[in-house]
Amino acid sequence: MDIPDTFTPPQRVLMGPGPSNVAPSVLKAIGQPLVGHLDPSFIKMMEEIKGMLRMVFQTKNEMTFPVSGTGSAGMEFCFVNLIEPGDEVIVGVNGAFGGRMVDVAERCGARVTKVEAPWGQIIEPGQIEEALRKVSNPKVVAVVHAETSTGAESPVAEIGKVVKKAGALYLIDAVTSLGGSPVKIDEWGIDAIYSGTQKCLSCPPGLAPVSFSPRAMKVASHRKTKVQSWYLDVNLLAGYWGEERVYHHTAPISMNYALHAALKEVLEEGLENRWRRHRQNHLALRSGLSAVGLELAAQEGYQLWQLNPIRVPTGVDEAVIRKALLNNFNIEIGAGLGPLKGKIWRVGLMGATSTRDNVRLLLSALCQTLNENGHKVDAAAALAATA
Amino acid sequence: MDIPDTFTPPQRVLMGPGPSNVAPSVLKAIGQPLVGHLDPSFIKMMEEIKGMLRMVFQTKNEMTFPVSGTGSAGMEFCFVNLIEPGDEVIVGVNGAFGGRMVDVAERCGARVTKVEAPWGQIIEPGQIEEALRKVSNPKVVAVVHAETSTGAESPVAEIGKVVKKAGALYLIDAVTSLGGSPVKIDEWGIDAIYSGTQKCLSCPPGLAPVSFSPRAMKVASHRKTKVQSWYLDVNLLAGYWGEERVYHHTAPISMNYALHAALKEVLEEGLENRWRRHRQNHLALRSGLSAVGLELAAQEGYQLWQLNPIRVPTGVDEAVIRKALLNNFNIEIGAGLGPLKGKIWRVGLMGATSTRDNVRLLLSALCQTLNENGHKVDAAAALAATA
Repeated sequence: MDIPDTFTPPQRVLMGPGPSNVAPSVLKAIGQPLVGHLDPSFIKMMEEIKGMLRMVFQTKNEMTFPVSGTGSAGMEFCFVNLIEPGDEVIVGVNGAFGGRMVDVAERCGARVTKVEAPWGQIIEPGQIEEALRKVSNPKVVAVVHAETSTGAESPVAEIGKVVKKAGALYLIDAVTSLGGSPVKIDEWGIDAIYSGTQKCLSCPPGLAPVSFSPRAMKVASHRKTKVQSWYLDVNLLAGYWGEERVYHHTAPISMNYALHAALKEVLEEGLENRWRRHRQNHLALRSGLSAVGLELAAQEGYQLWQLNPIRVPTGVDEAVIRKALLNNFNIEIGAGLGPLKGKIWRVGLMGATSTRDNVRLLLSALCQTLNENGHKVDAAAALAATA
Repeated sequence: MDIPDTFTPPQRVLMGPGPSNVAPSVLKAIGQPLVGHLDPSFIKMMEEIKGMLRMVFQTKNEMTFPVSGTGSAGMEFCFVNLIEPGDEVIVGVNGAFGGRMVDVAERCGARVTKVEAPWGQIIEPGQIEEALRKVSNPKVVAVVHAETSTGAESPVAEIGKVVKKAGALYLIDAVTSLGGSPVKIDEWGIDAIYSGTQKCLSCPPGLAPVSFSPRAMKVASHRKTKVQSWYLDVNLLAGYWGEERVYHHTAPISMNYALHAALKEVLEEGLENRWRRHRQNHLALRSGLSAVGLELAAQEGYQLWQLNPIRVPTGVDEAVIRKALLNNFNIEIGAGLGPLKGKIWRVGLMGATSTRDNVRLLLSALCQTLNENGHKVDAAAALAATA
């Protein structure tokens, strides 16, 4: 093999399930020269990241920091620290990421009770309540807040009340929700939560913001067995991200630069403003789609603002349209997963990607491509409906 | 808490145990706009990274790719995939990272036999041979090639012959060696290896290049139990980094941009040239230190070129000197760990940091600081000896 040429990425509009587009300030931050992971300037920045994450997560949890891996590493972080072999865990499964939680929990030795809903539907508080009655000693209840595979938002606040009554630990996947719609750790009684940087925080992928309540920390620090992952052991990580600054692993310096800048963008916009922007652009997209007979596949009343699952019209080849959008318009959208493969497109309006211009760009390109492929729609009507 | 100011890192000369300084091409690459992790352009780049890693690792191993975490995640990747509960593992322990391998292996359920040497000494092939005779059914022998905590380089090629004879899998920590001194997977009979990006590859931390031989892949794919880590399961990762491109996790896009550029720098310089440069600058530093009575703490004949453990002279406060170098000269060097705490400074000459100018910069700053702290040395003599 010869040495390849310098890589220059094409300029894409990232409207898939993540990564989303990144603000210029974040790209500038990530390209800065390195300092050491124990440099006083870096340690000060780590404290600032922890503080900003607490604001974004709406929590006072001391143990709030970015795990040095992507969102799935955050999922694994939560389970490996809380679960010991034989522990009983209830997991809501209404999409790919609920299914992944089951897999991860079982690899920790958990006895898992699945609470299921069809893909695109939500997990109801009553379903969790019923499972809690059946399971003898439930240690953890885990639910995906925003199912990236389906576009449905489960009622995490309501489920939290049920979990609290039963005394179990409450574990939430907020990979796609954080920064795009409300996530309120303390108010909702969440004990363990993980997110990713590349969705509504509009930061490159590579870090997983997590938070553990004092109760979760107590469980993790009073285990009978060692945490099965050294890399993700919160008891060791607390030494580096806490007061002591004990060397654990070399933190991804540049990624933390980027997260610092991305969190500043979020907080300078303001959480309420940011949520409103995500909601408005979702509604604009939905109106535009509706005007040409396209509909969202997620449960009415629980549709995510940041991830829009568009039902593929009968007779249209999902992949042909998706590839044409990429090749002709540089727009990336996502395919369906699992039972929704071939049946939906997933259109992300996350973070910096969530703009009125991008909604109109997508609608015009999608309508044109559908027309070119024999499915006639009125692009002007779609665009007019976004107003 | 208020929103913090934009973070601007101080300009450091990174002469600690990593991260090392990064070439401008790498900083330029990491700051490029994002594409999706399934974008055709990104998939092509992934193939190029795999190809370049094979050249740098000197291997034909198909399963050669960067794990989405730092070097310690690479360590965990190797152990979780190869070890099942009850397996017997022999680990060479002559520093912090050998000790960490024991911890990680035990968390996988391994029965570990330690082969020990004092910190700064090497693991001898004969020691491994003896352990292999005593252990009934050794599955894996694990050795740290370049002990970052001590500056000693164990004779990995020679140990490999002993391991091969016994039929065990050979697992190597090449975090600090790769890109700075020879690492030859196929020639040395290595089955599993991990490295980090932030040492002699001169890339920001955040990825762990790994490689599995076909034999290691066979072991990993014929396990009786599931790999305990979902995130690091090579059987799942092979689906994403292999031909099929099945979505597993969202790869850290920007970090892969950086690694692509960093590997290009390595290969454009040429491995032999790069090794020679690391050796020459190590010898220059060693001569300069020797001229003022300072010596290296690692075993004679097995001293790493990229990590130089300088013995702290009697009566000198290690931390005072180290902090003065940072505060007065913007030079980061490392402290000793474990039994070497307070007894050595660790001076990295890794990747882009390994230049004659940096050797002279360090010597002049160190001599001045020692003089200012009452330990008289002749800076001119140190500098003259580097010629």
